[in-house]
Amino acid sequence: VARIGVDLGGTKIYGVVVDGVEVLATAKRKTPREATPDEVIHRIVRVVEDLGGVEGIESIGVGAPGPVDASGTVLVAPNLTGWDGPVPLAALLAQSLHRPVTVENDVSAATFAEHRAGAARGVADVLGVWVGTGVGGGLVIGGRLVRGERGGAAEIGHMAVRPGGRRCGCGGSGHLEAYAGRAGMEAEARRRHAAGEPTQLVEEAGDRRITSRVWADALAAGDVVATEIVAEGAEMLAVALASAAALVDMTAVVIGGGLAERLGDPWREEVARRLGDLSFGPPPSVVAAVLGDPGGALGAALLAG
Amino acid sequence: VARIGVDLGGTKIYGVVVDGVEVLATAKRKTPREATPDEVIHRIVRVVEDLGGVEGIESIGVGAPGPVDASGTVLVAPNLTGWDGPVPLAALLAQSLHRPVTVENDVSAATFAEHRAGAARGVADVLGVWVGTGVGGGLVIGGRLVRGERGGAAEIGHMAVRPGGRRCGCGGSGHLEAYAGRAGMEAEARRRHAAGEPTQLVEEAGDRRITSRVWADALAAGDVVATEIVAEGAEMLAVALASAAALVDMTAVVIGGGLAERLGDPWREEVARRLGDLSFGPPPSVVAAVLGDPGGALGAALLAG
Repeated sequence: VARIGVDLGGTKIYGVVVDGVEVLATAKRKTPREATPDEVIHRIVRVVEDLGGVEGIESIGVGAPGPVDASGTVLVAPNLTGWDGPVPLAALLAQSLHRPVTVENDVSAATFAEHRAGAARGVADVLGVWVGTGVGGGLVIGGRLVRGERGGAAEIGHMAVRPGGRRCGCGGSGHLEAYAGRAGMEAEARRRHAAGEPTQLVEEAGDRRITSRVWADALAAGDVVATEIVAEGAEMLAVALASAAALVDMTAVVIGGGLAERLGDPWREEVARRLGDLSFGPPPSVVAAVLGDPGGALGAALLAG
Repeated sequence: VARIGVDLGGTKIYGVVVDGVEVLATAKRKTPREATPDEVIHRIVRVVEDLGGVEGIESIGVGAPGPVDASGTVLVAPNLTGWDGPVPLAALLAQSLHRPVTVENDVSAATFAEHRAGAARGVADVLGVWVGTGVGGGLVIGGRLVRGERGGAAEIGHMAVRPGGRRCGCGGSGHLEAYAGRAGMEAEARRRHAAGEPTQLVEEAGDRRITSRVWADALAAGDVVATEIVAEGAEMLAVALASAAALVDMTAVVIGGGLAERLGDPWREEVARRLGDLSFGPPPSVVAAVLGDPGGALGAALLAG
């Protein structure tokens, strides 16, 4: 039976038609600039039409960029306009599409796809870590996605890796995301630059965002500040993964996301090496996500009821 | 149908006959002083005989003080003599008792019992924390015990709460157990006493173990070193619980174990208060284990196939 999966991102909406784990068709459109719930729903319906509509489609799964509760309500989505409160996305889309709709967190969906059809295929216990502007997670235990009754599971970016340490965007202190996410790393680079340490990160980016490419360039050039901040982020990620392994003993860690892709294999191998040093038991393998753009949409389809 | 559950501890072997979650009979014997695998198996068989034998018993579950793999082999049990390598306890007991035998970690079994019939009854996602000489854990997600493929799950005592911090008995650094377990707290008290800080902990215990009762007495007397060490342990436990909640979003934490019982409600409420301050999402409730001695044996019976 065919299903449709949709990955709703801050910049694009990616849709797939799948049969089992096979992707039969794909379509994508830009996320509306004014990404209000109404506009987003209209745009998702357009992507579904691009895919041939709902004729012959049993159900639809959506991955959304925020925490999602059991009813498919997105609790908050900082990257979308006006989603600063709960949006009952599953219910609204089901009305428009006349099919059952399931909504899950986007990183959870991408992790589930890697578990079923990607880098962690055949592995029952998998932790996914998506390293980009922030650090998102997905957790599969015994082949089932772990959501938490309140939809709050797999928030690895908010594990406490250094009590009393760097302030996190969420208001907490010492969370992983403040050390290993692009935004937290940028804040630290600007702090050190303002304190008088020269770094091409700020010199190259100026007032614009320090992109993943700028980070990779600075590392390649041997920039000291960039090297130290990236190394500290890798160490903190390894600490979080070691704690996660002590708690759930996952067999594999799948790492994806824009910054992780840009930093590439040497960085991932460095994380794995540090994790090996820190682990209480046998460390999990650390592998790169392989499904790319369709992964989140495929996972959402696989999770659709 | 009736089952037998056995809790194999370092000092006693506790057995129960259960029907569903109801305990029909109990029996206990001391753990043999020379607790070799052969001696322990003979003693468990005696406890089963005390309970009326295996007539009418469908299966037997055992909780063991160490990590256990999926085949019921105890990988290591530091509190038992000569269990420094794997012991295929389930297979050996099945030969002696002529019934199917399931072996699980003892804290996992006790946590499962609290989930099914105790302090966290009706809660699907529960983390159990047993605070004694060390800090053990048990994890139930969606009503199922999380074991890990290699039997290494729920080792909350070895979550990294302070990278580069106190040395743990396992060789790692900054693990929770080094701050919140009795042995780690004793090591810190003796270090501070040797460095010239007066404390009734060492004055009262001398060269003997600083027992949970000695800790409680020192706290009651306002001993500064004891107060600071216990407060730091509570803070580190809260950090570990906040990280665990970010990862699995458990709804409840059940706290048991000898030291936790001795420190009582005020200490547990202090842990809950700090956890509330540190939590990314809504914090889990923190409740005391209620099943007492039969809990581990009951849980082992409930987990028996």
